[in-house]
Amino acid sequence: MSRITKKILSNYASDNPGVLTNLYRLLEHGRLGGTGKLVILPVDQGFEHGPARSFAPNPAGYDPNYHFETAIKAGLSAYAAPLGFLEAGAAEFAGQIPLILKANNHDVLQDEKDPLGALTASVDDALRLGCVGIGYTIYPGTADRASLYEQLAELAAEAKSGGLLVVVWSYPRGGGLTKEGETALDVCAYAAQIAAQLGAHIIKVKLPTDHLEQPEAKKVYEKYAVPRATLAERVRHVVQSAFNGKRVVIFSGGAKKDDENAVYDEARAIRDGGGFGSIIGRNSFQRPQEDALKMLDTIIKIYKGQLE
Amino acid sequence: MSRITKKILSNYASDNPGVLTNLYRLLEHGRLGGTGKLVILPVDQGFEHGPARSFAPNPAGYDPNYHFETAIKAGLSAYAAPLGFLEAGAAEFAGQIPLILKANNHDVLQDEKDPLGALTASVDDALRLGCVGIGYTIYPGTADRASLYEQLAELAAEAKSGGLLVVVWSYPRGGGLTKEGETALDVCAYAAQIAAQLGAHIIKVKLPTDHLEQPEAKKVYEKYAVPRATLAERVRHVVQSAFNGKRVVIFSGGAKKDDENAVYDEARAIRDGGGFGSIIGRNSFQRPQEDALKMLDTIIKIYKGQLE
Amino acid sequence: MSRITKKILSNYASDNPGVLTNLYRLLEHGRLGGTGKLVILPVDQGFEHGPARSFAPNPAGYDPNYHFETAIKAGLSAYAAPLGFLEAGAAEFAGQIPLILKANNHDVLQDEKDPLGALTASVDDALRLGCVGIGYTIYPGTADRASLYEQLAELAAEAKSGGLLVVVWSYPRGGGLTKEGETALDVCAYAAQIAAQLGAHIIKVKLPTDHLEQPEAKKVYEKYAVPRATLAERVRHVVQSAFNGKRVVIFSGGAKKDDENAVYDEARAIRDGGGFGSIIGRNSFQRPQEDALKMLDTIIKIYKGQLE
Amino acid sequence: MSRITKKILSNYASDNPGVLTNLYRLLEHGRLGGTGKLVILPVDQGFEHGPARSFAPNPAGYDPNYHFETAIKAGLSAYAAPLGFLEAGAAEFAGQIPLILKANNHDVLQDEKDPLGALTASVDDALRLGCVGIGYTIYPGTADRASLYEQLAELAAEAKSGGLLVVVWSYPRGGGLTKEGETALDVCAYAAQIAAQLGAHIIKVKLPTDHLEQPEAKKVYEKYAVPRATLAERVRHVVQSAFNGKRVVIFSGGAKKDDENAVYDEARAIRDGGGFGSIIGRNSFQRPQEDALKMLDTIIKIYKGQLE
Amino acid sequence: MSRITKKILSNYASDNPGVLTNLYRLLEHGRLGGTGKLVILPVDQGFEHGPARSFAPNPAGYDPNYHFETAIKAGLSAYAAPLGFLEAGAAEFAGQIPLILKANNHDVLQDEKDPLGALTASVDDALRLGCVGIGYTIYPGTADRASLYEQLAELAAEAKSGGLLVVVWSYPRGGGLTKEGETALDVCAYAAQIAAQLGAHIIKVKLPTDHLEQPEAKKVYEKYAVPRATLAERVRHVVQSAFNGKRVVIFSGGAKKDDENAVYDEARAIRDGGGFGSIIGRNSFQRPQEDALKMLDTIIKIYKGQLE
Repeated sequence: MSRITKKILSNYASDNPGVLTNLYRLLEHGRLGGTGKLVILPVDQGFEHGPARSFAPNPAGYDPNYHFETAIKAGLSAYAAPLGFLEAGAAEFAGQIPLILKANNHDVLQDEKDPLGALTASVDDALRLGCVGIGYTIYPGTADRASLYEQLAELAAEAKSGGLLVVVWSYPRGGGLTKEGETALDVCAYAAQIAAQLGAHIIKVKLPTDHLEQPEAKKVYEKYAVPRATLAERVRHVVQSAFNGKRVVIFSGGAKKDDENAVYDEARAIRDGGGFGSIIGRNSFQRPQEDALKMLDTIIKIYKGQLE
Repeated sequence: MSRITKKILSNYASDNPGVLTNLYRLLEHGRLGGTGKLVILPVDQGFEHGPARSFAPNPAGYDPNYHFETAIKAGLSAYAAPLGFLEAGAAEFAGQIPLILKANNHDVLQDEKDPLGALTASVDDALRLGCVGIGYTIYPGTADRASLYEQLAELAAEAKSGGLLVVVWSYPRGGGLTKEGETALDVCAYAAQIAAQLGAHIIKVKLPTDHLEQPEAKKVYEKYAVPRATLAERVRHVVQSAFNGKRVVIFSGGAKKDDENAVYDEARAIRDGGGFGSIIGRNSFQRPQEDALKMLDTIIKIYKGQLE
Repeated sequence: MSRITKKILSNYASDNPGVLTNLYRLLEHGRLGGTGKLVILPVDQGFEHGPARSFAPNPAGYDPNYHFETAIKAGLSAYAAPLGFLEAGAAEFAGQIPLILKANNHDVLQDEKDPLGALTASVDDALRLGCVGIGYTIYPGTADRASLYEQLAELAAEAKSGGLLVVVWSYPRGGGLTKEGETALDVCAYAAQIAAQLGAHIIKVKLPTDHLEQPEAKKVYEKYAVPRATLAERVRHVVQSAFNGKRVVIFSGGAKKDDENAVYDEARAIRDGGGFGSIIGRNSFQRPQEDALKMLDTIIKIYKGQLE
Repeated sequence: MSRITKKILSNYASDNPGVLTNLYRLLEHGRLGGTGKLVILPVDQGFEHGPARSFAPNPAGYDPNYHFETAIKAGLSAYAAPLGFLEAGAAEFAGQIPLILKANNHDVLQDEKDPLGALTASVDDALRLGCVGIGYTIYPGTADRASLYEQLAELAAEAKSGGLLVVVWSYPRGGGLTKEGETALDVCAYAAQIAAQLGAHIIKVKLPTDHLEQPEAKKVYEKYAVPRATLAERVRHVVQSAFNGKRVVIFSGGAKKDDENAVYDEARAIRDGGGFGSIIGRNSFQRPQEDALKMLDTIIKIYKGQLE
Repeated sequence: MSRITKKILSNYASDNPGVLTNLYRLLEHGRLGGTGKLVILPVDQGFEHGPARSFAPNPAGYDPNYHFETAIKAGLSAYAAPLGFLEAGAAEFAGQIPLILKANNHDVLQDEKDPLGALTASVDDALRLGCVGIGYTIYPGTADRASLYEQLAELAAEAKSGGLLVVVWSYPRGGGLTKEGETALDVCAYAAQIAAQLGAHIIKVKLPTDHLEQPEAKKVYEKYAVPRATLAERVRHVVQSAFNGKRVVIFSGGAKKDDENAVYDEARAIRDGGGFGSIIGRNSFQRPQEDALKMLDTIIKIYKGQLE
């Protein structure tokens, strides 16, 4: 075990050996194994946005095997997807890549201010498919967030007792926030804190802007001059908000960017701000595989410090 | 086992031998056994539309035995019905035709924009009646679809652990869609994707029109010129949207058509587009049995390639 | 066992021997034993309408023992009541009359367009009280009917597995129907079909009028000229709608009629239309016992064919 | 066992020996033991109205021990209170007075037309505290009464199976009733009937006025001239409505009356109307203990017939 | 065991030895051990108010270890926090300080008149982390308080059966109260009473003002001249309202006060009014640790009577 993996594991000392084992598997897998950094491939957009919006740009992506292959070929840390996509390849690719079962999902067939999501898979599903963890999305800021937190709390307890990692997608949404507020620094930091307090092992948030949404929070950020001018500073604040860096926080890439340099700049900011890595979906699978592998290779090199 | 059955089974390699056994039974049964194609008789209209609207055109259909007999005589792949209809004949016709227990149902005694349905039978019911699988209808697009997805997720997990197939009727409905949108190509494809991601083994959708409902999806279909001029092309896109053909997708026949040629044209399009077959209710049981058997014989021949 | 009891039992061949045993007990009990006809005494009006409205006309009815005695003295097929009334006499009259525990109830202390009812007793209650079955009321047409169907489905599964009969009161109600529509022929037939599909062994509906409520159904009744001029014809259609007579359908008597001949005419129509009998509450217990016994004697004779 | 206790127990012959044992304990305890009459001390007003409104008039009542002592010193039949009050003294006074755990409670910190109450204790709590029974309040007439009935039905089944008595406070309330209607004779009688049908062993209602609330019921009361001029006649009708006196019905005293003679008049009417006794809270604990003991002594003598 | 600890334990005589053991551990731990007084450090503001509003004033507080260290160094009675914060340090600091797992939490990402909170941890979590008890917040006065009471009742029963203490934060809120009413004397006393009746071992309320909120209560306070002029008198009334001091009641410090003397004055009033101590969050962790330790030392000395 690398020194840095050992240090990260020590932050989870209250967890049982089953959880620590799966955290080890995740941190030591792939080209970033042992560096304390992660790049994860998530493919839940077929459910979240619809199949054509997700896969028409690169139709190979309709096939579930394609994503297993991309993750394996690129040497990524893990592959995360809903039940159906994992069931379709879990036997064929058994053991070749750590799997995270995305346990709740939401579609966009009805326009909603306060998305709720549905629990579409279980801890038993994750165990029978050989996963290292389960994923769950909470929407802090929505009217029914309490029921999401409760569902996650039950799921997480069951997952931990089964030795699985709990990965929480924490996406502020809902009637209490402006559109701009969903990625505001105070709100992203709050979302990371909530996920951490709910017992998440790994937290996924969006990259924050320098907007401040909540008036009471704004006063405090300004009074204490919390640094937030650069993306790296904002990443640092979010990581700080997740137990001062004692919880693994990774950042999502968002919509596909035609200019790969934008993606690389984000990776550099995450690295420089002390983030633990990226979770990159559309920017991976909406490119032809060759381009995607090249892009992922560059990102990995940035995280390994092999590229400025 | 036929080569093609073997190939289809390989797409379900993560499933347990119990599920594979029942999938084998379904794919190898009847006149289409071993061809990779299915024709299923569903009779839930007594519950969904009322008894007279369903059976007055051919009163023999009031009797539950009639439908078992039709399915057996026609050499169909399976018979699907609600609890009551299956209980009425399961002992008498035990083993003669694969049975699918339709586990939720909905009546039309109140006009609703967002149908919900009720869980009217259980996995234990399916097991005690000797079924090969359970059927469940989701209504993507309705306000409470999340609770349907969750109910299906629990039911499916229990069914799989009992070795049963999970057959999902995926019918877009509800306040978020126009009437035309319920059969729009983008919406049908989305419905197939959702069912697949929820872990369905077999997916039943309606035949799509070339309408595109969702503005964000429309842009993508047009930008990437997804072929959709012919019904066969649209079938192909829906099959692609169900894990690139790695999940069995069948299509429903809809209301009774007086002209049988229309039914045959649909079967040809399903075949030519790579669909896995038909589920034909009213077009079967609302005709006199002799006529129905003749029509089903023709459809089977189309699927077997014995007729153009 | 009479030939006709044997024939009826054969329609329930998928049920376990425990259920068949209780169906036998019901069909072979009392003066109509072995005739395939049933007359049941139901007394749930104390809960449904209030005690004085139910029992002031004949105050002996306040006492739970009175109804056991009436049912036994009249040689009826069974006595059906809520938990409290059965608990009050089940030990004293143990074994002397088949009991049906009415498992849900509804009061009229608040005016409601869509009655819901409450589950007030359980399968375990029915078993510890020595009942042959449980009764449950559904209200097809109400907004929350799906939750009723689901509650019934769970209760019925548990009852069957405990060897108990499932008797469903199917009473159309709610915002989707006109007052006249609650007893319309199409609606009554639909209510019988739903109960049958939900797995009821015995179905209780109201006697239908010749009104047709649902426009789509009306077209079909008229196109196919479903006979509905006489009450006997309408009874026949309802029985047909309950699996072509393969499920036992009985009819309720409604409010107390001062003229007993009206009650007898209904019994004749039920008999002539192929119905399986009557469930007669207020017309029994709101008369002095002597009058009630005389009236029930006449009805039994009508069903036995000893009276025209 | 006294003859009258034996007779009352015979009305509960369907209950198990555990329940009969606790009913015996209750009926044979205290100064009214063996008379078939009960006087119970209930102290849930701290929760229902707030501590100062309940105990400021006699601050000794803030202390939970005080109420155990009053009930014991007065030789009452039982003491009923919420979880906290019972936990505070159950060990110290173990066995000295039959205890009834009030299992649901409601506060007045928000004004509500349709009170709901919360289940604040369980059958297991009652068993571990050595209680003879559990108490539960239903509010017939409220919008959500069905959920109360269902909660009671489950609780009662569990209680009975644990050998505990089920005591139901049946208090009509809610949007369907006028304020005057809450104590109307027809409504009180209906409330008693509902509790009895739900399987209550002991029913607590308020003393009824001669008002008649429900138009349909009013017609019947007038047509059949149900006696209701005196309080004793009204008590008699309520007792009749609880299975013709085969269920124990007791009456609550209501708000504290400065004139003790009014309390005594009520006790006489309960006795003369065939009621089974009183449940007296505020009139007991809001007086100094000496006064309360004197008042309770007089009431007991009235019930024993030692005083006119 | 000190005499005073023994006396307090005697008030919980109905509890099992497991609970008594944990109550002993709490009362005998730290510098106030054996005095019957408690000072507890609660840190749930990261969840309740957001991370920057909580920790930016003293950024050391972002780190979960910091709070364990503060509580240990100050010799406090216990440390209370949500799941995530406890998981982060429970192994490293195992046994050094009694832990209370705050089992429900609420964020402020949506403005709500009637906060509900989410159950974010379980009794099993508390047991696996070595806690002495669980904490739960109720909001008397909110529309859905009944569901909170029910959730607490279930949680408390499970906690007690696992030998854990039940600590209830009772915070009046919601549409039924004015802002001023949330800390009114009558309302605080009512909140303490409700928590006690729900079976809380330890109750945390806010310090009350002399405002009286509820008209019916106001009349009583004035009629009986309940003393309320000084804070100590008001503390005394709240303690009286929690079973006449037979339940441990502690008071929260509220928002950070720049003037430490205000904090000390509150501690004196709590001591002089017979309160059992303080729960001090923001006033502890929003100061530099050295200042916080000094302030806590002074408070402890006030409670020990070493300082006037």
